[in-house]
Order: sequence, then structure tokens, then C-alpha cells
Amino acid sequence: MSDSEATTSRVHEAIPDQNTVQVLRDMANRLRIQSIRAMCSSQSSTAEIMSVLLFHTMRYKQADPENPDNDRFILPKKLALSDAVIGWCGQGLGAACGMAYTGKYFDKASFRVYCLVSGDISEGSVWEAMAFASHHALDNLVVIFDTNCVIYGASSPPGHCTDVYQKRCEAFGCNTYVVDGRNVEALCQVFWQAAQVKNRPTAVIAKTFRGRGMPNIEDAENWYGKPMSKERADAIIELIESQIQTNRNLTPNLPIEDSPEISIGDVKMSTPPAYQMGSKLATQKACGLALAKLGHVNERLIMLDGDNKNTFSEVFKNEHPERFIECFIAEQNMVSVALGCASRGRTIAFASTFAALLIRAFDQIRAGAVAEMNINLIGSHCGVSVGEDGPLLMALEDLAMFRAIPNCTIFYPSDAVSTERAVYLAANNKGMCYIRTSQPETAIIYTPQETFQIGQAKVVRENVNDKVTVIGAGVTLHEALAAADNLSKEDIFIRVIDLFTIKPLDVATIITNAKATGGRIITVEDHYPEGGIGEAVCAAVSTEPGIVVHQLAVLEVPRSGKPQELLDKFGISAKQIAVTVKCIVMD
Amino acid sequence: MSDSEATTSRVHEAIPDQNTVQVLRDMANRLRIQSIRAMCSSQSSTAEIMSVLLFHTMRYKQADPENPDNDRFILPKKLALSDAVIGWCGQGLGAACGMAYTGKYFDKASFRVYCLVSGDISEGSVWEAMAFASHHALDNLVVIFDTNCVIYGASSPPGHCTDVYQKRCEAFGCNTYVVDGRNVEALCQVFWQAAQVKNRPTAVIAKTFRGRGMPNIEDAENWYGKPMSKERADAIIELIESQIQTNRNLTPNLPIEDSPEISIGDVKMSTPPAYQMGSKLATQKACGLALAKLGHVNERLIMLDGDNKNTFSEVFKNEHPERFIECFIAEQNMVSVALGCASRGRTIAFASTFAALLIRAFDQIRAGAVAEMNINLIGSHCGVSVGEDGPLLMALEDLAMFRAIPNCTIFYPSDAVSTERAVYLAANNKGMCYIRTSQPETAIIYTPQETFQIGQAKVVRENVNDKVTVIGAGVTLHEALAAADNLSKEDIFIRVIDLFTIKPLDVATIITNAKATGGRIITVEDHYPEGGIGEAVCAAVSTEPGIVVHQLAVLEVPRSGKPQELLDKFGISAKQIAVTVKCIVMD
Repeated sequence: MSDSEATTSRVHEAIPDQNTVQVLRDMANRLRIQSIRAMCSSQSSTAEIMSVLLFHTMRYKQADPENPDNDRFILPKKLALSDAVIGWCGQGLGAACGMAYTGKYFDKASFRVYCLVSGDISEGSVWEAMAFASHHALDNLVVIFDTNCVIYGASSPPGHCTDVYQKRCEAFGCNTYVVDGRNVEALCQVFWQAAQVKNRPTAVIAKTFRGRGMPNIEDAENWYGKPMSKERADAIIELIESQIQTNRNLTPNLPIEDSPEISIGDVKMSTPPAYQMGSKLATQKACGLALAKLGHVNERLIMLDGDNKNTFSEVFKNEHPERFIECFIAEQNMVSVALGCASRGRTIAFASTFAALLIRAFDQIRAGAVAEMNINLIGSHCGVSVGEDGPLLMALEDLAMFRAIPNCTIFYPSDAVSTERAVYLAANNKGMCYIRTSQPETAIIYTPQETFQIGQAKVVRENVNDKVTVIGAGVTLHEALAAADNLSKEDIFIRVIDLFTIKPLDVATIITNAKATGGRIITVEDHYPEGGIGEAVCAAVSTEPGIVVHQLAVLEVPRSGKPQELLDKFGISAKQIAVTVKCIVMD
Repeated sequence: MSDSEATTSRVHEAIPDQNTVQVLRDMANRLRIQSIRAMCSSQSSTAEIMSVLLFHTMRYKQADPENPDNDRFILPKKLALSDAVIGWCGQGLGAACGMAYTGKYFDKASFRVYCLVSGDISEGSVWEAMAFASHHALDNLVVIFDTNCVIYGASSPPGHCTDVYQKRCEAFGCNTYVVDGRNVEALCQVFWQAAQVKNRPTAVIAKTFRGRGMPNIEDAENWYGKPMSKERADAIIELIESQIQTNRNLTPNLPIEDSPEISIGDVKMSTPPAYQMGSKLATQKACGLALAKLGHVNERLIMLDGDNKNTFSEVFKNEHPERFIECFIAEQNMVSVALGCASRGRTIAFASTFAALLIRAFDQIRAGAVAEMNINLIGSHCGVSVGEDGPLLMALEDLAMFRAIPNCTIFYPSDAVSTERAVYLAANNKGMCYIRTSQPETAIIYTPQETFQIGQAKVVRENVNDKVTVIGAGVTLHEALAAADNLSKEDIFIRVIDLFTIKPLDVATIITNAKATGGRIITVEDHYPEGGIGEAVCAAVSTEPGIVVHQLAVLEVPRSGKPQELLDKFGISAKQIAVTVKCIVMD
């Protein structure tokens, strides 16, 4: 084949014949009519983009939308055809990055990822995702910016200034095109060109106009979401129908079937936790070690981290460098990337950073939970027990945040053995999990053979004469045990419960033991009182008239200090527990 | 004066004489030694920047750091000299934008704002702030990027590629310079040049190297935060000391005193709320009207909104366009800008958006609270009562979030009168306030003369025969009242409490009324159960053995529907309240 033949063939591949072009225009207009009928203006401005992607550019099995070989399409609103990850408010691009990363580096497959970004371009998370995409050379990713940018009734700053969008996309490392979003041929061409580019993501800046061709509403500011009279809608639809020249339909191209067969279910622990009772290890370190260990069992287990060398994701990175994703200090994007990696069950994703930094990603986390995504989040350095780093890095509100996430399982392990078991349970659990880990080295209190289940607390200290049930987790469990030791010398006995999971809460164990100890409970937590363990327990026993709960928690904004000093100062140490027990028992 | 004379004079103004340059170098080295002693590496790489800003460029009264005429300096870590807003993790620039906006548009004063951004450049909030600064033409703002970019032990994506930073800053509309961050003369010059530029913010990209000039540690990856042996530190300090040539100190230039005298205290309501009992209005509309009204009383009352025309900030915008700040769809930055506007008591700032979108700014909100900033946040469209917009826009976790914010006052008014009173109380309250507002039109239940206080609930329905106390707020209060009406027809009487503020909670009123109604409480809220009103009440009565609490709340992820249908479906309507009352009373 000569060069000119090759060029002809390529142009032919890029732009379909004129009949097909007309069919794509007609299909766009049919989508437009649908969107006017449904009052869904965002689809109206992007009808040609949708038509070209869905019926010309993208490769997928129409009858099997979840097929792993299919090209992906992420939209600001969830459609049947788009992926299960919600493109809510600037979050779609991060998820698209996760899918593209998975396709390029884990699956090494041919599928491509298309993401439409609309009025949410002002969200910083979009630019976190752009930086990630170019840093990781995601040439299988195409982001389409709908510069119409009307959402919730107003405009993003750059408005129609496509040159501003172009400069920003180029500065963030994208191969960038500006096209007329209504021009079917131009769209076909840029999507084809994008597929030829290596090692860079592509940005397509589409000049679109809401309601273009519709009398009196083209780009009218107040159209969005406002009801249109039936007469007016009918007149517009009639006008659009008059432009439709064919009644053909196109079927999408089939995908290249080169995604590997994988298994993410039934991850087995290779050996029991290799820890000796009584020795000491920080749960955040145990968590890193457990992930590295489990990474040897399942090759689809991946880890993401936000540029933190001391969360012990390093261990995983060293042992499985090809499955570690560096997300830099951009936590919102890290969570979205994890959601994308986990979509269609392609990986078992664990994303890890300081618990305090996960707070930045609350909105991404709740969107993932609403979409019933299967990801695992690890928050290290929780609570005042971190010590020297100041109140913002302490995470005293992460339990309140994760408890308010629907169906999220929250592990708060207290030693290295239970931490390893928590990692194992999270890897096998469908849905979102959060593991809260701590910096202080704490004693190992369980044997390697101890079994753990989600929603099952452990009674770790028990005596027939127990007067109070003390409920702890993490560092405070060890404070409770120390208090029990000290009190026993004065012949005061307390029952101690290790919650293991904060959500779901083991209500039966709590109530049974509370009743066995005179209806008295003390909760003690390295967290603010609002939304934490204490309130969870109060709510769990709220319909039991005979049970009273005393909450020990961090009641003010802490300052830096030595970990043990801070536990004392904020009233969650063994000393304070013992004092509280005595007060209650004397009552 | 001839052109060349003018140029000479300008260059002279830009770059100090050689003696002064040497003093600035020496002061930088003294700062560097301090930072090595304190193991604070971020100050080590930016010692020359600090020296030039603090002792040459910036104008301020050293003895009066809070003076409103002073230039502002926002650093990633809080220093005595920097502003009270914490530059935590990419948030400083948004606060700097708020200060610059206040200086340029509200104060019309000469002070300038300098903000140092370090390793947190990957955070999307930085780029939200950049877009804001250029859109609003903040030419009194200089952002300095410390491209050393080592934080928490690793590097942000672009590393030392200053051309990448340069392109990004230019694409985001900044007048941009690249300088050697160790070159005192170059720094003096660019800061001077920045002050001559009109209508654009300036970005200074400083090439810095941690530990430059220190043997074996220049840019060594693992230096940050790691202990250095005393011998090594001493050797390095000796080397730096050998470079110091003077022992002079410089005093900063005094500010231009042109900030206006203002008052933000003791805001009076001009007239009582002008609502008739029994008429109907959505609290979110009442909130917008109240702000517009209060805006006429105090001219430093400002409003920020995130591009949402239907949160009723439009009313304020129309009546006080010069005090309305358009923040576009970038909620993190909106909150940071509000913090900046409120700093040094320059404005009474109200930032408003959908309650669901405030979730995006959890980290900014908690940082503002830790810094004890005085801002007010308004979240509209809360709960399933929004109806058609889907679960992510419903905000069923905002109370959990705000309750976990230390010292945050949470208003949840139930009618237009109490909403207006809440706005007035928030404007006068020092510290952070949140006002949760609703979309449904609800009846006005208070007279215009009713007085309200923070932490004071209202008993709105009371009878000697009351069998249960029902606690509601917002739409659920009206459901409780409807339930009371219906139950009274069956001779079942219930007490109804309107909480008004969720935090602080009126514990005394709750306990007194619970005891008067057989120890029975039902809480009903348009929110998930975790961290909401129910748990707050459970915790408040947890040490009272005779009180039981039944929680009605949204127990699963809702889907779209008609508001009243959703209240029914998720068990928080009058019907469900009545059923629950009967169950309890029959027990």
C-alpha cells in the first residue's frame, strides 16, 4: 500500500461516508428531540457528540453494557449506557482516569475511555484528574469539554472562551482539539486522531450551544430546567424533525476482546497473621504489611496512595510496584480513581492516606457509596494519639463522616492480628469499607488463630463481678485494658469490649454485656463525641430504659503534644477511664 | 523627569542597594539556621523568599500584626506573622483570594496579599483559587509557588519542571514569573514588577532547593522530617554562618493607612419579620430575603454563592450587587474565600449553596473552625423533601458533618420567622454558623415578635395529657404538628419540640419534657440516622436511665420522587410519626 493510499484509507477510517454522516446527524436530532421531551437540556447541546461516540467511534456490545472489553463512557448524569460510576459534579473524570489506568496498565487491553465534562469544569477535582491523566500518560482517555457550561442556571468563569479551555488543557499535558460540537464530521475526525496519539490523554473542547437551531432559545440563559410550553416544544420538535433525512439506524462497532480473565472473589489468606501476643506494632504498619501480603494472593489487588511515604503503603509499593498507583496530594482524585479502577469488578482497590486527608474526599466517597461501588479506604494517623502534628492532621471527625456513608463497613482494629483480619475481610467484602488505623505501637492481644467477622465485637476482659462495660477501639481499647488492670488491684472489675467494626455495630453483644454489668456503659474514643463511637452506642441502646452510657471523647480542639500526654489531657486515657468507673460505681 | 531617569528610579525602587541585598541574604541565612534547628525544612528552602517579603517588599506594622492596613502573608504553616487563616493543604490560596477581594472591592485599600504555596500544588482547590483570582482581576494578589515541592516525603507530579508550572499559571490567567528562589535581587525585582501589573494576579514560580548549599542533603529525597545528627546539623550551620557578612537588621516598610473604619458588631434587625402566621414560605427563600434585608442594615455584610440561581441568593445579589461574590461551581474555594473575607473582622460573610454541595468543602470548613474563623454557611435544598433531584443532591449527611465541626452553631429553622431570626443571630455570633434550609413551602408558626436564642428549643404543642415528646426541625416539625392534630382526634396527645439549633442542643428542655411525657421521645429528621438529630438527642439523654428515644430518619439511599411521597416512603412523615406514637403508647 502506497503512502497516499494509506492516507486515503486513514481519512476514510476517520470520517465515514456522506450517507453515514447524514445518519449520524439524524440520530443526533432524534436524541435532541428526546431530550426536549424529557426537558434534559444537557443532552440537547451534546446530541452530536453522543451520536458520534455511541454509533461511530466507540466499540462495545450493545446487548452487554457491562462487558469488560467495551469502551467506557462517563457522563455527568447516569445513563443506562454510561458506566456505573456517577459523574457527579466534576468527579467523572477522576473515575475515567481509574478506568483508563486499569485498561492501560492492569488489563493491557484495547478498550478506550470517553468522559464528558460539562458545567462542572470549575471544580478543582477536574484539574487534579487532568494532572493525573497526563502524568500517567493515559493515551486511552478522551475528555470532552462541553463548553456550553450551563449548569444549575449559570455559567462557569471562562464561558465560551474556548481558547482559555484550550490553554488550560494543553498546560495540563493534554493533546487538545477545539471543534464545533455540532459538526459530525469534525467530531468523527478528532476522536479518530485521538486514538493515534501515544502517551498523552486527549482533550476535545467542543463548542456547543444549548438549543442551537431552536428559535428564541439558543444559548438563552434561563432555559435550563425551566418548563417550556407544549406549543413551543412542539414547534421546535417539528423544526428539528424537518431536518431529519433518513430513518436508518447504526449499530456500534464490536470491541476487541483482549481483556484478561480475572478473579477478584474469594481472596484467601495464605497464612494466619504471624504475630506473637504481647509484642507491639502500630496498626497502620500492620495494615501496610497485610496489604503487601494479600497482594501476593490476588494479582488484581491494587493500592493507591496520596504521596505519603509514612502510611506504610511503601511496603506494598516495594513488593508490587506494578500495582501501586501514585496519586500525589490530591485526595479527591485518588478516591475517584479508585472508584474507576474498581468499576466492572476489574480490581480490588485499596486507597490509603492520612485519615485527616480523606476528609477532603467526603463528596467522592458518598458518591461512590450511592453508586454501590466496591472500594476500600484506609485512614492512618487517626486521633490525638498522632501527637505532634497539630489538630488538622489528627482526624477527629472521620468516624462521623464514614458512619454517615450509607452501607459503609467501618473497621477500627486494635492490634496487628485484627488489622490483618480486617484487611482480609475488606478485600472480600462487596461494597465500601473503611479501615481506621493508628500510629502508636500497641500490644498484640489476639492469637493468630482468632477469627473475626464484620459486625462481631469481642469481649476481651470479663469477670462475674464486672460493674461496668467499657467499650473501646484502637488505642482506647488498650487504655481500657490498662484501666481494668489497675482497677482490679482495688477489687473493681470492668468488662472490656473491642468493637472491631464500628459499622455495623454489634448491638446484641453491647446490650447483653451492659445488662450483665448493671446497665452501665462507658465508651471511650479517640474522636470528637459527635457522630463517633459514643453516639453510635447511645443510639443502639436508646430504646433500652435500664442502660446508661457515659461518653469519653475528645471534647475540644487539641494542640500538639506527646501521644500519651494528649490521651490524658483529653480525657481518654486509662486514668480517666478509671476515674469515670469509680464515679459511676459509687453512685 | 526623563524616561531614562524614570527607568533608573524604578529599577532603584525595585532592587535595593548592594548593602541591603547582603543584609537580606544574611537574614535569609539566619532564618535558614533557625529552620534547621527546628527541623522545619519548608522554611529552609524559602528562606530568601521570606527574607525579601518580610524585610523589603511587604508593608506592615511589625508591632501590630492584625492591623487592617498591613499587607497579608499566607503560609502553608501558621506562623506568628502570617494571617490567622490556616494555609492547610492547598487552602491558603483561596483564603488569600478572599483577602485580596476584600482589599480591592470592599476596602478599596492599598494592602497587598502574598501567598506561599508549597507541596500542596496538586490539590485541585489551588486551581479553583487561581481561576477565581484571574476572573476577579485580583492584581493585589501574588502567589509564590515553591517548586521544591517536597511534602510528606515525596514530590508532586511536575517536580522541578518550572515550565509546566509556568504554562499552568499563564493558562489560568496569571501574570507569571520564573525566578531563582535563592536570588534576593531577582525576588525583589519580581515582587516590585507584580505591583505594577493591573487587573491580573501574579504568580511567582520560585526554583528552590531544599538544603541548597548543605553538603549531601541538597534536594535529597528523604531529608524532610527526618532527624539529622547533631554533628551534621552543626557542620551545616557552621557553613551557613560562614556566609553571613553583616549583623544588621532591617525594619519593614510601614503600610499605607487607607482601610476604612468599619463596624461588623451589633447588627440590629431593622423591623421584625414581616410574615403572617399561617401563610407559607420555603425556609430557603426566607433565608435569602432575610440576608437581603440585613444587608441594608450593615454594609459589611457580604454574600458568596456557588453559581446557584435557585438558592435565593439572587435577592441579595439584586439589592447589593457590589457585595455579592460569584464563586462558580467550586465549593472548596468558596468556603476558603469566605474565610479570607472574614479575616481580621473585615466583613460578615455568608456563603450559600446547596447543602449537598457544602459536603465538598468539609476540609475547608473544619480548617476554618480550628482557626476560630467567623463565617456563616447556608445549605439549602436539604433532605429527601427536595424531591426530584436524586440522592446526591439531597444532603442527608450535612448535619453529621457540621455537628463534628468544633464550636459550630447549627441552626435548622422550621418557618420563615425563625429563619429570619437565625440569620440575624448568625450575623451577630462570633464563630462558625451553619443554617440548614428547606425547599418545601411550610407554614409560618411563630409571630413576628417571637424571640429566639442560640441553644433554646421551643415547645410548640403542649397538653397535660401528653404521652410522648416528638422532636423535629425543618419539614419534620410540620409533620410532627400534623401528627399531633390527627392523634388528638383519637384523644392521644403529644408534645412537640422545635429544636431551632441542633448545636448547641437544648438538653434541659428535652429532658424536662421527656420526663413530663413518661420518658418517651421520638426524634424525626430529614437526614440519615448517623450523626443527626436522633443521635444528638440519644447522647444528650444517655445518662438519664428513665428516658427512651425512638429515632425516625432516612434509613436507606433514597431515589427521586415527589417530596411528600418521599417523606412517607422513608418514614419521616406525619403518618409514620402517628404510627410510632401509637406503638409506644400501647406498650
